[in-house]
Amino acid sequence: MNILVIHGPNMNLLGKRDKTIYGTYTLEYIDELLYNRAKEYGMKLDIFQSNIEGEIINKLHQSLENNIKGIVINPGAYTHYSLAIRDALEILNIPIVEVHISNIYAREDFRKKSVIAPVCTGQISGFGIYSYILALEALYMMI
Amino acid sequence: MNILVIHGPNMNLLGKRDKTIYGTYTLEYIDELLYNRAKEYGMKLDIFQSNIEGEIINKLHQSLENNIKGIVINPGAYTHYSLAIRDALEILNIPIVEVHISNIYAREDFRKKSVIAPVCTGQISGFGIYSYILALEALYMMI
Amino acid sequence: MNILVIHGPNMNLLGKRDKTIYGTYTLEYIDELLYNRAKEYGMKLDIFQSNIEGEIINKLHQSLENNIKGIVINPGAYTHYSLAIRDALEILNIPIVEVHISNIYAREDFRKKSVIAPVCTGQISGFGIYSYILALEALYMMI
Amino acid sequence: MNILVIHGPNMNLLGKRDKTIYGTYTLEYIDELLYNRAKEYGMKLDIFQSNIEGEIINKLHQSLENNIKGIVINPGAYTHYSLAIRDALEILNIPIVEVHISNIYAREDFRKKSVIAPVCTGQISGFGIYSYILALEALYMMI
Amino acid sequence: MNILVIHGPNMNLLGKRDKTIYGTYTLEYIDELLYNRAKEYGMKLDIFQSNIEGEIINKLHQSLENNIKGIVINPGAYTHYSLAIRDALEILNIPIVEVHISNIYAREDFRKKSVIAPVCTGQISGFGIYSYILALEALYMMI
Amino acid sequence: MNILVIHGPNMNLLGKRDKTIYGTYTLEYIDELLYNRAKEYGMKLDIFQSNIEGEIINKLHQSLENNIKGIVINPGAYTHYSLAIRDALEILNIPIVEVHISNIYAREDFRKKSVIAPVCTGQISGFGIYSYILALEALYMMI
Amino acid sequence: MNILVIHGPNMNLLGKRDKTIYGTYTLEYIDELLYNRAKEYGMKLDIFQSNIEGEIINKLHQSLENNIKGIVINPGAYTHYSLAIRDALEILNIPIVEVHISNIYAREDFRKKSVIAPVCTGQISGFGIYSYILALEALYMMI
Amino acid sequence: MNILVIHGPNMNLLGKRDKTIYGTYTLEYIDELLYNRAKEYGMKLDIFQSNIEGEIINKLHQSLENNIKGIVINPGAYTHYSLAIRDALEILNIPIVEVHISNIYAREDFRKKSVIAPVCTGQISGFGIYSYILALEALYMMI
Amino acid sequence: MNILVIHGPNMNLLGKRDKTIYGTYTLEYIDELLYNRAKEYGMKLDIFQSNIEGEIINKLHQSLENNIKGIVINPGAYTHYSLAIRDALEILNIPIVEVHISNIYAREDFRKKSVIAPVCTGQISGFGIYSYILALEALYMMI
Amino acid sequence: MNILVIHGPNMNLLGKRDKTIYGTYTLEYIDELLYNRAKEYGMKLDIFQSNIEGEIINKLHQSLENNIKGIVINPGAYTHYSLAIRDALEILNIPIVEVHISNIYAREDFRKKSVIAPVCTGQISGFGIYSYILALEALYMMI
Amino acid sequence: MNILVIHGPNMNLLGKRDKTIYGTYTLEYIDELLYNRAKEYGMKLDIFQSNIEGEIINKLHQSLENNIKGIVINPGAYTHYSLAIRDALEILNIPIVEVHISNIYAREDFRKKSVIAPVCTGQISGFGIYSYILALEALYMMI
Amino acid sequence: MNILVIHGPNMNLLGKRDKTIYGTYTLEYIDELLYNRAKEYGMKLDIFQSNIEGEIINKLHQSLENNIKGIVINPGAYTHYSLAIRDALEILNIPIVEVHISNIYAREDFRKKSVIAPVCTGQISGFGIYSYILALEALYMMI
Repeated sequence: MNILVIHGPNMNLLGKRDKTIYGTYTLEYIDELLYNRAKEYGMKLDIFQSNIEGEIINKLHQSLENNIKGIVINPGAYTHYSLAIRDALEILNIPIVEVHISNIYAREDFRKKSVIAPVCTGQISGFGIYSYILALEALYMMI
Repeated sequence: MNILVIHGPNMNLLGKRDKTIYGTYTLEYIDELLYNRAKEYGMKLDIFQSNIEGEIINKLHQSLENNIKGIVINPGAYTHYSLAIRDALEILNIPIVEVHISNIYAREDFRKKSVIAPVCTGQISGFGIYSYILALEALYMMI
Repeated sequence: MNILVIHGPNMNLLGKRDKTIYGTYTLEYIDELLYNRAKEYGMKLDIFQSNIEGEIINKLHQSLENNIKGIVINPGAYTHYSLAIRDALEILNIPIVEVHISNIYAREDFRKKSVIAPVCTGQISGFGIYSYILALEALYMMI
Repeated sequence: MNILVIHGPNMNLLGKRDKTIYGTYTLEYIDELLYNRAKEYGMKLDIFQSNIEGEIINKLHQSLENNIKGIVINPGAYTHYSLAIRDALEILNIPIVEVHISNIYAREDFRKKSVIAPVCTGQISGFGIYSYILALEALYMMI
Repeated sequence: MNILVIHGPNMNLLGKRDKTIYGTYTLEYIDELLYNRAKEYGMKLDIFQSNIEGEIINKLHQSLENNIKGIVINPGAYTHYSLAIRDALEILNIPIVEVHISNIYAREDFRKKSVIAPVCTGQISGFGIYSYILALEALYMMI
Repeated sequence: MNILVIHGPNMNLLGKRDKTIYGTYTLEYIDELLYNRAKEYGMKLDIFQSNIEGEIINKLHQSLENNIKGIVINPGAYTHYSLAIRDALEILNIPIVEVHISNIYAREDFRKKSVIAPVCTGQISGFGIYSYILALEALYMMI
Repeated sequence: MNILVIHGPNMNLLGKRDKTIYGTYTLEYIDELLYNRAKEYGMKLDIFQSNIEGEIINKLHQSLENNIKGIVINPGAYTHYSLAIRDALEILNIPIVEVHISNIYAREDFRKKSVIAPVCTGQISGFGIYSYILALEALYMMI
Repeated sequence: MNILVIHGPNMNLLGKRDKTIYGTYTLEYIDELLYNRAKEYGMKLDIFQSNIEGEIINKLHQSLENNIKGIVINPGAYTHYSLAIRDALEILNIPIVEVHISNIYAREDFRKKSVIAPVCTGQISGFGIYSYILALEALYMMI
Repeated sequence: MNILVIHGPNMNLLGKRDKTIYGTYTLEYIDELLYNRAKEYGMKLDIFQSNIEGEIINKLHQSLENNIKGIVINPGAYTHYSLAIRDALEILNIPIVEVHISNIYAREDFRKKSVIAPVCTGQISGFGIYSYILALEALYMMI
Repeated sequence: MNILVIHGPNMNLLGKRDKTIYGTYTLEYIDELLYNRAKEYGMKLDIFQSNIEGEIINKLHQSLENNIKGIVINPGAYTHYSLAIRDALEILNIPIVEVHISNIYAREDFRKKSVIAPVCTGQISGFGIYSYILALEALYMMI
Repeated sequence: MNILVIHGPNMNLLGKRDKTIYGTYTLEYIDELLYNRAKEYGMKLDIFQSNIEGEIINKLHQSLENNIKGIVINPGAYTHYSLAIRDALEILNIPIVEVHISNIYAREDFRKKSVIAPVCTGQISGFGIYSYILALEALYMMI
Repeated sequence: MNILVIHGPNMNLLGKRDKTIYGTYTLEYIDELLYNRAKEYGMKLDIFQSNIEGEIINKLHQSLENNIKGIVINPGAYTHYSLAIRDALEILNIPIVEVHISNIYAREDFRKKSVIAPVCTGQISGFGIYSYILALEALYMMI
């Protein structure tokens, strides 16, 4: 079962960013955690990080050809305005889980609105790096 | 590890309500599922349903005396306006997971705003009855 | 033909409340009027008043078991914010008539919006105690 | 007892318009129904349809000379913006019932606001062609 | 002189709630303070706390029969949306003082609007437990 | 010097309309007053009243052929939404005075916005029937 | 193939109106252009201009009897508020092209919203008199 | 008949300010014009200019002692926010005419709202220095 | 204990202003009342009235040098927009009580927002001249 | 005559995206259609698709050097927020036609606003793949 | 080269105000810094501080007579609402630099809007007392 | 001292863009100016231009490794919506100066809001190419 994991803009600096909000784990650490958990579930992960909105769209498009069965996406700041990513997600006909490390509803006002959420299956927000693990579990239960 | 599970208004009619949105499972079925999963995690669940806003508050207050270590709450329609439940949650000093069966961001406009979310640890929305399971898992990982 | 009539919060004080807006009739007087009219229509009324939002929801839920064929509801101030009552009404699959004694569109701004109206069959507002009579008539013609 | 009944714009095409919303009855059918019911109540109806805002105003003005005792008005789309019709209604000193065939609160957002309602006695909305019958009944009870 | 004092939702946990905002006094302590001060003023207090909106309304209705001469009410979170409590207060024809322990204008945006205030005599906000004492004094001076 | 005077919708009922706001003078009385004053100024008045938005537009268009040198217009309720009248006025290249009998800024909110005002030379509001006289004077001074 | 062309309010003054925005062509010139192009397409045009909202509605209603196969409409200022014309268009079950001579999105704010657009097949705006030609072409390709 | 004329902030620089909007006349020129016209009407003018909000209020207060019978006020930019001047005007029980040299409804958005207008008798806007003359005339006709 | 009492704009006309809202007492009467009460509390009052925003700021600044221990301020209409007074208050590090004679939440919309409130200790509104007395009492209890 | 055609984000998946809205044609099919039509008009097309906002800007910049005489752009989701593309278009001094396959005014709210439209010559929306053909025709007629 | 420097309300208390935001320098210190820097640039400074809006306007007016070649203004809280100061600045035909010590875009919402900015040459915000130095430099480079 | 200078989208066309707003200088000219001034300050500049949002983010991330001590950024149109760039800036712990060539507060409404500003040290706007020079100076004074 192929699963695509998308890390949005600035996620590559995780662990260097405001640690009181995002914690001290690096992206590499999270990825390793995800690979391990995926193995338990019999999933094969394709993990992708980009700061470029259009490259995330390109990657999403490829899932049509790569037999991807589910998507975990943390759209970072693009959550709040990238209607182009929203459109790309809407085309795909597979379960999509939107994740956020921090609780986006407990921060600045602009972070409270996700333009991505209405086209996803569901949203998991606020559990630190566990948000990703829960997303994998959600896909595992649904697919 | 004592966990309090709150089902908000109209949840008692689950399985009778609009099935295209909420699915066909009854609340009893969900509760059984939760008891089983909780056992695996070594949790002891206290499950409570009420249609009365103030009774939910009363129940939340009791968790101060019942050695409750975490809360799973599906506030139903109170999600969108019960500042009183929000205040009750804010008093407690333990992890709180807000869950929604349906994806509240893919429905009517008024369902897109949760007044509860800012005082919870995190939110899980859109995975059907699995939202509850994921909430238990989230508490399990955090506590 | 069983019909449920719901009087919302503060309706029990009718006749004592601002008489220039609500008139001088007491709730008892209205109920008698309704019983009489119902008899003409071959209806059997179950009349219920409560100031507690959740009790109104509880009562509405019972109509699933009481073979209720239609509902007349004056939600009082809950008209303007009780999404929980809205959800309860939406579950039921029978004609629902929302009534208001006063013309809610000719008063304070907050009274002009009903969160209940979109899930009701229709709304009758502004005809004093006759609003209730017209609601019975509406149910009589529709059922 | 002379009663003026106003059908607003596009009502002449009733039965040809979106039938899932407005039903299949023609305006002629409704008028006949109203004449019959009026006879029972001892009312004499003057029924008028126009698509021209100003002609509706002209007709309303005539009621000052025609000894009209009550008005039933379905302002159609003018409901939502014709402040000129509102002013015309406000001048008259008789009971006015605003009626709508469909439940205007369960449709597009712009249909949810009536600029006419604040100057009417009351509003009846959502009961199909019965909305008109109920309006006559309302006038009968009030006058 | 009978005075009704209403403590709204979550007030029973006072002293356990966020102490930087609400201080460390318990509700019992406040009540004792109020009884003492009332005695000086020749007032007889009826103090009532509930987390249930409708029960607060029920209690307010009783003041019509209990010869209550004035009301002190801290509506807690209901301040910001309970139009039903507002309606209940508006019926009563006696001085009403709305009190808040914290300065509601120096906190979250949603706390800045009171739907209760327009039907009260006046509002006292921000003086900690002294807000209650000042409210008694206000009633003493006005009645 | 030819001057066009436009009376908008419901002005024909002046003196019959709410007298506390519009005074007791009839439109005929105002017109006579205007003819007299016009004579003093060497103006020739063309006075026109209609309740039909499009007829007012037609009349305004004619001023291009009738050698009209200035316009006094009381657009009545069309003041607040008739962008079509606004467009008609904008085409004409002569002084235009918008008049209102009542002070539109001291009434309902919707009356406070004139969509006509930005394309007029100036506005005179609140002086009763004198508003018209002042408008003639304004044209007299400007032309 | 019968096509109805509607010119809305103030279009009769084209070429006299603000020439920097609308160009110098008269309506007669446009109509001739349209007749010629229609001939090429094998269309028979029925061209209608009115400043009266209700007369435009009347004309639209006639297309139900006149075997009209498509509509080109420039609603002028009614674009922005005539919900009655919108309703009339929605009834008809044929392709409708909304045209505007100027780019309505590059002018005053109020011109940026068309209440007509959601019930039309498509919209062409900003190409001067060519907007009409393109509309004919669009109908030709679609029908 | 004593009349108070108030020139608000920046009026002292008239003739030096943006001449395409305010014209080339100086304040002295206007005052002379006003004195002359006032003589014709048998009025005695007290003309006052200040850039200080509070001094304008002080001057307005004095009219209670100076037997002032009417006020002409051009509040300049204070038109749009000085609730303190509004309150001062509301106290006085005499006719008040608000004047503006330019058409405030044809300029920046913030100039379109007058917080002063609701407490004045009427408003005259857009006639250049003639706005003042018309204001005197208005007072002459009303008093 | 030195206390500064600030009366904002138009307060000097108290007793002459709309008596149904502000009562019939003059400012002199209030001041005397306050001096008396202050004496009981061992306070020394410095009472200051001005209609000029900047002079109020100047006076507030002096409290830094005058050993002022607390402030009572009725900012009048400046309540609603004087961010400059707000800034001046925020600098001072002493208890500040905002008072209003009328219930500002039961009047015009613009009076419902205080830009001063967030930087004060608390607010007392609606108790007529007693609002001032209660403010002194509040300071007495807090300091 | 060189014409640049820009296909925005997700257009490469045309025919795979929601077919009830966008139809079943692929982008390749559209391009062929455009090449053919362009030949008739003596145009030479440069067709470009990208999902990356900045690459679209880069391409637009090149038209300054490539002797491009007109632009057809379907900005996809960037229509609604890409102010950077808007700025790029505004620099160019040639006719620009904004096209949309679907009627953007009959879909989700966020699709109703184009930040691009004000700097284009005109907009064509809702005619399926014919929107592109009409855009070429529009350029042909204008250049 | 004469330069006018305006310090707005509460600036006189600099160094005493919230030091985490405004730093610890006094206004005297800043002025000395500015005099020194001005000397380097061959400028002659006229520095003025007032808490009174109208006095700032008076001072600005004088620059027309004092051969002032540029203005540096820190309008303090008047930044956000003084349209009167805005008008005064707009009259002057010289470079104007708006300065703020703190970054007004990183503070309360109301501080984010400057009504002054649109009529200034430019704005410098957030560099502490260096904002003033940069403003002098900006004038030096521009004049 | 290494300083990173970022030119946002469309800046590469400077001097070709609307010259009345942006002036006639090319980007190359500005860069040369900056290199020269930097030399005086002992700064070493790394200047970067891109039209691609994500590439700007990538560049900003590199400053963590390149020992960058300060940033000058002109985010162009991304100023108004790129929350992703905002997040990238927020991570860095060095002084950041936002610059704009034109006065963004004197142009279209959408340009008046910077989502970048709250995470920068300060903002300099409106001084043409001097804005950049002042930014360097600001960094020089702060670091």
